Amino acid sequence: MEILDSYKALLAEIGKLDSATSLLSWDERTYIPPKAHEARAKVVGKLAKMSFEQFTSDEMGSYLEKLSAMDTLSDLDKASVKRVSKDYKRFRAIPPALYEQYTIDRSQSEFAWEKARADNDFTAFEPYLTKMVDYARQFAELFGYEENPYDALIEDYEPGMTAAELKTIIEPLRAELVPFVQRLMEEGTPPDDSFLQGTFPADKQKQVSLKALEAMHYDFGAGRLDVTAHPFTTRIGPHDTRITTRYLEDNLLSSFFSSVHEGGHALYDQGIPDELTWSGLDDGASMGIHESQSRLWENMVGRSREFWHFFYPTLIDVFPQFEGIPLDSFYRAANRVEPSLIRVEADEVTYNLHIMLRFELEEALLNQRIEVRELPDLWRDAMKRYLGVVPPDDAQGVMQDVHWSAGLIGYFPSYMLGNLYDAQIYRTALREIDDLPGKISRGELLPLREWLRDKIHRFGRIYDPKELLQRVTGEGPDPQYFLDYVRTKYGEVYRLK
Amino acid sequence: MEILDSYKALLAEIGKLDSATSLLSWDERTYIPPKAHEARAKVVGKLAKMSFEQFTSDEMGSYLEKLSAMDTLSDLDKASVKRVSKDYKRFRAIPPALYEQYTIDRSQSEFAWEKARADNDFTAFEPYLTKMVDYARQFAELFGYEENPYDALIEDYEPGMTAAELKTIIEPLRAELVPFVQRLMEEGTPPDDSFLQGTFPADKQKQVSLKALEAMHYDFGAGRLDVTAHPFTTRIGPHDTRITTRYLEDNLLSSFFSSVHEGGHALYDQGIPDELTWSGLDDGASMGIHESQSRLWENMVGRSREFWHFFYPTLIDVFPQFEGIPLDSFYRAANRVEPSLIRVEADEVTYNLHIMLRFELEEALLNQRIEVRELPDLWRDAMKRYLGVVPPDDAQGVMQDVHWSAGLIGYFPSYMLGNLYDAQIYRTALREIDDLPGKISRGELLPLREWLRDKIHRFGRIYDPKELLQRVTGEGPDPQYFLDYVRTKYGEVYRLK
Repeated sequence: MEILDSYKALLAEIGKLDSATSLLSWDERTYIPPKAHEARAKVVGKLAKMSFEQFTSDEMGSYLEKLSAMDTLSDLDKASVKRVSKDYKRFRAIPPALYEQYTIDRSQSEFAWEKARADNDFTAFEPYLTKMVDYARQFAELFGYEENPYDALIEDYEPGMTAAELKTIIEPLRAELVPFVQRLMEEGTPPDDSFLQGTFPADKQKQVSLKALEAMHYDFGAGRLDVTAHPFTTRIGPHDTRITTRYLEDNLLSSFFSSVHEGGHALYDQGIPDELTWSGLDDGASMGIHESQSRLWENMVGRSREFWHFFYPTLIDVFPQFEGIPLDSFYRAANRVEPSLIRVEADEVTYNLHIMLRFELEEALLNQRIEVRELPDLWRDAMKRYLGVVPPDDAQGVMQDVHWSAGLIGYFPSYMLGNLYDAQIYRTALREIDDLPGKISRGELLPLREWLRDKIHRFGRIYDPKELLQRVTGEGPDPQYFLDYVRTKYGEVYRLK
Repeated sequence: MEILDSYKALLAEIGKLDSATSLLSWDERTYIPPKAHEARAKVVGKLAKMSFEQFTSDEMGSYLEKLSAMDTLSDLDKASVKRVSKDYKRFRAIPPALYEQYTIDRSQSEFAWEKARADNDFTAFEPYLTKMVDYARQFAELFGYEENPYDALIEDYEPGMTAAELKTIIEPLRAELVPFVQRLMEEGTPPDDSFLQGTFPADKQKQVSLKALEAMHYDFGAGRLDVTAHPFTTRIGPHDTRITTRYLEDNLLSSFFSSVHEGGHALYDQGIPDELTWSGLDDGASMGIHESQSRLWENMVGRSREFWHFFYPTLIDVFPQFEGIPLDSFYRAANRVEPSLIRVEADEVTYNLHIMLRFELEEALLNQRIEVRELPDLWRDAMKRYLGVVPPDDAQGVMQDVHWSAGLIGYFPSYMLGNLYDAQIYRTALREIDDLPGKISRGELLPLREWLRDKIHRFGRIYDPKELLQRVTGEGPDPQYFLDYVRTKYGEVYRLK
């Protein structure tokens, strides 16, 4: 098994480089002094290039070829070789010169997007976006696909998913969600959230976030919580998965929900066992499955009446001004629904509508059924159809997200899939964990974490997302669980007749 | 000049690896989660090994050989080739297998030292220390020397210094310092420092440290202040030099002086110009010169009456309990002298005596005039002779410092040299900067920083320490400046007749 050892040693070397890169990047977003950014970019570039070169080396190719032909490998090693081979093939599909030109154009495009968004000037951004869409088309051809070039791209984020399958998921979701939101707005009683107005000092918000993460059994011995402009979770290496949040002093719940959301990602990561370290399998099964874990903790748990039954006294300890506000009023206020312009601020009911619209446009763009210059109008149309609101300008419309400016096409659906998977997974948890709501209302969150670890986390990237979902829930992706959840919960919150 | 470009590119690649390693190490001592240490050591090991391999590569050797023969290089490039050639030769002098075995034995020795010190059991540590001294002897032979193997080792820390020259520096210093300390203790009036007893919250101490660093014009845009068990300064990369301190709640001045000390190191580093980045010259001229900068700020400035004239109101703002304490009493309390057992806690008068003792023993050890097993007794003897105090056990005696356990022989004198250089440099500053004491008493510290930058910092590692000192002060190392400073200042503080 000399080849297997060499293969593992090479993966470990790459893993160490990537670990260094992760720390450098984390530091770039947390503690780096402002004047150090320029040099840091060079250091990160150097390490990323070395890692890429080692991963796509002929040496790696030769190991993979030989190992793929062996039938004496353990199941784990087989899974590693399978995953790594797939990544290897994709990385090798793009000529290095093309990729290098893309990284240069991408950074210009992101820069142009930032400026164009600030100036609310889509015309200035248009040529850059056109170039990025061209790259996406080229990459799709190089990766290869059967039906739709979109399938070649979504593979990076949700292996095995296709545009055709996405359409079958989106169709019933849209058909029910659009009228349901309308009904909530027209017939429902919106919760009073006036008591959430006020100033909430950052250090107190931090106490609340820490207590919530402790309650979730996030392991602070293998992670930490810091502050960044945009919250994120990062695996620096084994036993080191860090999360960040941000404290808006006029918005108490923003930091709370983002800490719990990132905490959900981090629990997934902390649940990946040591035997998967630096094997190519020490990551989540897909972006969508990862998002299902963050959303499950944020929404299914963190926005539930049971959770607040347990956690409200803790919140009141830190913010005594809520003493006079009944638990039920607080719970309802934390679940306010409002069709709005900005995806990242959307509630859990309207969120998926923002994604459908993006999928529709990016899939059409990639297939050349529409052109970049038509996007602003098409965006406004779709917002009107899906959410009933129309952005007053492109900065709050088609230019609100960074993704397309970086050539990321096929990425958005993961967010939606996370929302659908989590409802489906949570339904299974409710069936399999004895009295889960009762446990949550007593603050006993460990059984849920352990169940998720046993069913999902410990497998890392061994299974495809679809295979994993099938193993956990006994079914493929089905939007009905999300729809049932939303209809029941929000029918009650909005007191629909 | 193709070779020159390739040489610079290789140095830059090494610089980037080292920058990543510095951040990984900084994080290991500041923010890393406890369970991540094991994996982190592997990541650091990998990057350090890569850097070492590139630095000692045949490729580098060939560049250096060709560039050394060229006479068309700029002065800066010549200096780079000269320095890097010297380092290259030293690194190549040790066979890789020997060095690898040394790193393994060293980590066992450090571990053994830690345990032996805790158990106060020198006998348990003796075989490890013996092995480390053997390594030092082997390395000295491999590096080569003219007179004394000690000279081969001190070269790492203070290029150009020799044991013989150290003896000529130490002799007059000891001859005057030992009786002077005795006189202070016997005839002097010790300052009352009872008002420094109390509890000083860490967050308030931090405010004081930050204000002191701001006053010194430490650039927070290119650095930061964090907390660690043992304070240190580290250059992460260009425009990123971080310092750390520690807050002992029962000792207000400990964090203040260690922040100012590290700030002095950091000002040196921040004053190294961009053109030296990743050239082999972007560091201090030597450990001793570096220490002269930290000690100059800590002692010459930070313990001066002028500084406290300016800074005392700031301290009182944060700690109003000092309102009733006269400035002069505070100044004198901050300058208390006490012969004590532990080097790192020594005041500026007795500090050098701790170093002389170590030099005397390590030089004799290396030359086999004494044996490791004799060290505890010889230590006690020397403490009695130099400081008039005798450690009650070896943990507070010969085993107090980590250095020898790691094979670091020839390192200690740098601390003493820093103390001598700083007095000599400061004397020159007093002559060249118009009304420096007046400026300091008004909080105008920028002229001093700029003078140091102009005379020392901007040259990085271009000059040997002796050459640099000559350029700045017009003389070689001379202990009289330190002795004059100490006699004048402490004669007054202790009210000697």
